[in-house]
Amino acid sequence: MKNFLNDYNDKGHPQVYEFLAKLDEDKMIGYGQDDYSLSVQEKIKKEIGRDDVVVEFLPGGTIANIVAATHTLMSYEAIVCATTGHISIHETGSMEATGHKVVTIDTPDGKLTENLLRDKLALFGAENDVIPKVVYISNTTEAGTVYSIDEIKALYEVCLEFGTYLFVDGARLAVAMAREGFTLKELSESCDIFTIGGTKNGAMFGEALVVVEDDLKERLRNHMKQKGSIMAKGFILSAQFDALFENGLYYELGKNAYEKAMKLKDGLLKLGVVFAFPPESNQLFISLTKDQIEKVEEFALIGLENLGTDVYNVRLCTSYRTTDEEVEGFLEKLKEIL
Amino acid sequence: MKNFLNDYNDKGHPQVYEFLAKLDEDKMIGYGQDDYSLSVQEKIKKEIGRDDVVVEFLPGGTIANIVAATHTLMSYEAIVCATTGHISIHETGSMEATGHKVVTIDTPDGKLTENLLRDKLALFGAENDVIPKVVYISNTTEAGTVYSIDEIKALYEVCLEFGTYLFVDGARLAVAMAREGFTLKELSESCDIFTIGGTKNGAMFGEALVVVEDDLKERLRNHMKQKGSIMAKGFILSAQFDALFENGLYYELGKNAYEKAMKLKDGLLKLGVVFAFPPESNQLFISLTKDQIEKVEEFALIGLENLGTDVYNVRLCTSYRTTDEEVEGFLEKLKEIL
Amino acid sequence: MKNFLNDYNDKGHPQVYEFLAKLDEDKMIGYGQDDYSLSVQEKIKKEIGRDDVVVEFLPGGTIANIVAATHTLMSYEAIVCATTGHISIHETGSMEATGHKVVTIDTPDGKLTENLLRDKLALFGAENDVIPKVVYISNTTEAGTVYSIDEIKALYEVCLEFGTYLFVDGARLAVAMAREGFTLKELSESCDIFTIGGTKNGAMFGEALVVVEDDLKERLRNHMKQKGSIMAKGFILSAQFDALFENGLYYELGKNAYEKAMKLKDGLLKLGVVFAFPPESNQLFISLTKDQIEKVEEFALIGLENLGTDVYNVRLCTSYRTTDEEVEGFLEKLKEIL
Amino acid sequence: MKNFLNDYNDKGHPQVYEFLAKLDEDKMIGYGQDDYSLSVQEKIKKEIGRDDVVVEFLPGGTIANIVAATHTLMSYEAIVCATTGHISIHETGSMEATGHKVVTIDTPDGKLTENLLRDKLALFGAENDVIPKVVYISNTTEAGTVYSIDEIKALYEVCLEFGTYLFVDGARLAVAMAREGFTLKELSESCDIFTIGGTKNGAMFGEALVVVEDDLKERLRNHMKQKGSIMAKGFILSAQFDALFENGLYYELGKNAYEKAMKLKDGLLKLGVVFAFPPESNQLFISLTKDQIEKVEEFALIGLENLGTDVYNVRLCTSYRTTDEEVEGFLEKLKEIL
Repeated sequence: MKNFLNDYNDKGHPQVYEFLAKLDEDKMIGYGQDDYSLSVQEKIKKEIGRDDVVVEFLPGGTIANIVAATHTLMSYEAIVCATTGHISIHETGSMEATGHKVVTIDTPDGKLTENLLRDKLALFGAENDVIPKVVYISNTTEAGTVYSIDEIKALYEVCLEFGTYLFVDGARLAVAMAREGFTLKELSESCDIFTIGGTKNGAMFGEALVVVEDDLKERLRNHMKQKGSIMAKGFILSAQFDALFENGLYYELGKNAYEKAMKLKDGLLKLGVVFAFPPESNQLFISLTKDQIEKVEEFALIGLENLGTDVYNVRLCTSYRTTDEEVEGFLEKLKEIL
Repeated sequence: MKNFLNDYNDKGHPQVYEFLAKLDEDKMIGYGQDDYSLSVQEKIKKEIGRDDVVVEFLPGGTIANIVAATHTLMSYEAIVCATTGHISIHETGSMEATGHKVVTIDTPDGKLTENLLRDKLALFGAENDVIPKVVYISNTTEAGTVYSIDEIKALYEVCLEFGTYLFVDGARLAVAMAREGFTLKELSESCDIFTIGGTKNGAMFGEALVVVEDDLKERLRNHMKQKGSIMAKGFILSAQFDALFENGLYYELGKNAYEKAMKLKDGLLKLGVVFAFPPESNQLFISLTKDQIEKVEEFALIGLENLGTDVYNVRLCTSYRTTDEEVEGFLEKLKEIL
Repeated sequence: MKNFLNDYNDKGHPQVYEFLAKLDEDKMIGYGQDDYSLSVQEKIKKEIGRDDVVVEFLPGGTIANIVAATHTLMSYEAIVCATTGHISIHETGSMEATGHKVVTIDTPDGKLTENLLRDKLALFGAENDVIPKVVYISNTTEAGTVYSIDEIKALYEVCLEFGTYLFVDGARLAVAMAREGFTLKELSESCDIFTIGGTKNGAMFGEALVVVEDDLKERLRNHMKQKGSIMAKGFILSAQFDALFENGLYYELGKNAYEKAMKLKDGLLKLGVVFAFPPESNQLFISLTKDQIEKVEEFALIGLENLGTDVYNVRLCTSYRTTDEEVEGFLEKLKEIL
Repeated sequence: MKNFLNDYNDKGHPQVYEFLAKLDEDKMIGYGQDDYSLSVQEKIKKEIGRDDVVVEFLPGGTIANIVAATHTLMSYEAIVCATTGHISIHETGSMEATGHKVVTIDTPDGKLTENLLRDKLALFGAENDVIPKVVYISNTTEAGTVYSIDEIKALYEVCLEFGTYLFVDGARLAVAMAREGFTLKELSESCDIFTIGGTKNGAMFGEALVVVEDDLKERLRNHMKQKGSIMAKGFILSAQFDALFENGLYYELGKNAYEKAMKLKDGLLKLGVVFAFPPESNQLFISLTKDQIEKVEEFALIGLENLGTDVYNVRLCTSYRTTDEEVEGFLEKLKEIL
């Protein structure tokens, strides 16, 4: 069975398990404050090339989004994102449950632009308006598109102009980096807070949260604790990021997912398949008839993604494990049924 | 100065003050539980023609919406309304501040329809979806349009089908009743909970909340107290509704606002003015050039209404006090400048 | 019937109605932003003797507490008050409903002291602790005791030391001022935010909120709107405070309530009645047997107050309307049954 | 170094890692809905001996408490627990952050009793009261004491009487079971919802949530998703509980922690050490002078526990890994310095 269902259906990269195996029996101090966890935080900072950021490890993407997007928000402050934003439609109202409105911007491809953002932010200010305070983007996006670092910088400029924070959800950051070639340092200079996703790039679970803006550092761990996101055995999380950033494994895994996706894209284009969104990352959204979908499901695991409308596209998702053979085999089979 | 600014720029109808003056010096029991307040609740029930509803008086529209729309909601349950819904764009995120998402439906005229509602509700159900539980409509709407009782009944049918409650915000209910001729009894049979707006129809302030559905009656006053909406001197509120429903004053005031608006509409049509929304109630939205607006502002108070987009229409708002002379005078002046 | 039930069972002082009657027919602008309302805000500032405070009018005590105590709080920040604090036990969890913990301090008489407060605040700081950010006191207190201005200043010092705000709930401020002789200016120099209660001192309803601390001024009206506490016809509220602060009426009314209470206290002491709390304000809590209570209820309206425990004390409450005759008559009758 | 610091400073039992190693490469479906995860849920149900419960796996204790305690709560409903309850003082206001008050009951030993609970619940009901809806106990408690199954049943009776749910936080359930000898089936018959703690009894992380009461099953996963507690790779969690309940490992580990604690307790008693709370579980709280503490810290890792007051006791915590030698060695050293 060809597996293009999602990028989180494996148990994690072997190197992650090797690092877990190497963990001392007694890490002693709980809640991620042990010496080893602190050293892995330093390792990530070195990777970013900055000493002035705060790094924390959280168990999953939704909880990382909750913590990052709502930290420091006053009750009348809101979060802005694309209408397709994960936090708006795929997390059961997690943002609103913390008391904050999510203001959405319609986009053709899941990406905010400088103009779309400026036009929206300019609408607010009256006393019966919420006040936008955090702009959320995901890179790669929910539509499988990718922001270049220049595009992020342009959004960041608008944010600075309007006094909002820019939060980059990096659940699939490794793929965006593989495509666009930016560094963690460049990203850290282009936003206020971001995550480095582990779950979808080789970890068992876990996201690293990187806080650049000083205002967002204060009492961050109190907020994390309140939301239930500090793990008692924090070193389990730390070991995974230690493994992922040992010898550039993180980038390598993202690169494989991206390259296999591009190979798949090329093959699909040759077959005349229509893409619902620009095919830029390891999530490819294509349009197939209901009959075609049924036939594909006989030889491959695929996803049907709801993007907040009643349109379901077929999602083909590659991962760090996807092989050339898997891509080729899928394309051959697909050719037969089109 | 012709006054078409809004319908809440007066201090209230004389009959309201007469009833306040008649209040006994000692009403004794606080929080709206005195005998007089209870008798006014009974009066409203009689007006509705039902014994099985609960009537409470609240000091204002936003707080009434908060209490009505979020009572009984579980954390993952959401409120559905038109994109132009007051609770979505004009109340500073009041719904979200209680922890609940507002799901919006685009409409051409501020009105939900059976099909629009059914199509939206059908999208939900997955575990990463919020679950719609309350449908909010306002009658008249924020766009100045009006639901007939049959249209409300049709929405109610959809609500029953999907297990959601229907809440009708009646801030301007008297005008809707004047146009559509339905009774409070009919309304009570077409939804689960509604308000009878006083503030914009002759009261100093205050909305009556009518709860039809039994599930929404439980612990309602605990919820009201928590949100700060139970007045210590409840009899001040009761007296106003006593006055408004004495000898049909409430309906009469709504009728005047509506009839003057229709007279104004007819005159505007003759002048070739373009309406932004169907002119159905005491809020008329017309399109004028910037130059025209400046000239109008020399002889009349008018409103510029933001409907969640960057388009500001001119709002002409009649009220229970608007006179034929005021309408005629305005039309004459307007004719000169067009 | 002698009326010692509460201090909010009348419809308001005649001067309040005179000012309402004097209101222009057209105040034009809504939401308390009309010229008249702004002028009354200036009048209150003049009364305080300061230009650098913000004054807003809100419809009731609970909503004023919600707005004042939770404005600017981050999710992990908490409110501190006496265990008997109104916001902790008599407002249906209104504070927690906004997402914030209420940390309580046991007191013998409803009053926080410098030491009690310092000892409590010193306990917090760990990442699994909430962070106290607002200290709430009421003056007079729920136990009928009164803070002197020096006592408030001492608490304020502790607040400054720990970086918390001090909020003084002045629902019965006029009585506290009558007893302790401090001015609004002195109060404004001893805390960050306070209310001037109207509901229990001659108004139909309404509290003036005075914000001293700059951080608490930002976006205050957005917060007020979100909580449903901005009245459409704001001038109705303004007129009442205009009346109350015309010719010192506010202080005079408070003085009467206080003096009648002291006369009552003296009489009770002579009768050997035992007080549950120091008898310092217009709320006197006395201990009577069940039999005695039944007899008293035949000639007087009294209250039974639950202070968060299973002990119910008899509350005798005087008001701005209480007369010498009413006090004397009550004492005579009481003498007969003791 | 003798390690009595806590029971979560190891990386987990070898059998847990064996089960993780055995996981198929492709578990396919995300979010704990894969066949393997469903089969482990069935395994736990079999362990409980009931088909009519719902079992879910969550990544940690705080998030499990948030999900379990606040599911289905209406805004005016509250949670009741001992003043020492973990959710009240050690989770940064996590309950209040969801909008709900935590009502606390003072206890001498961290345990609620039938009478304490009934007396507290009887106080509520007025419209300005929150309404208690969930009673939270932890077994073992934060004070290291243990409820027998009969004590839990007695509390459950009170809960049924007052219409509240009983939630048992089983972060250290294995130790309570070791001491009291009750079964999971008996526990399931004595409360509405409980957790089976993995983190402190051999897992890398994770708690199993068992829902008995039907009302608490509805939309549970929507609530879990909203709070960020559904792991993308749910099978990682499932595998750990599969391991823990293979051949009774879970009970065996709890038994070791308990037996070593009792051996330690016996030794401490012989040395004349004073216990702050009855020594009933793997958490022993003893009183030592500051000097003694400093000496102990030279040969052992110990904890200083703040129980919501300014008193810090020394906590000696055994775990599933504690050996007889470790206990004996500690006692010998301690003897020398007392």
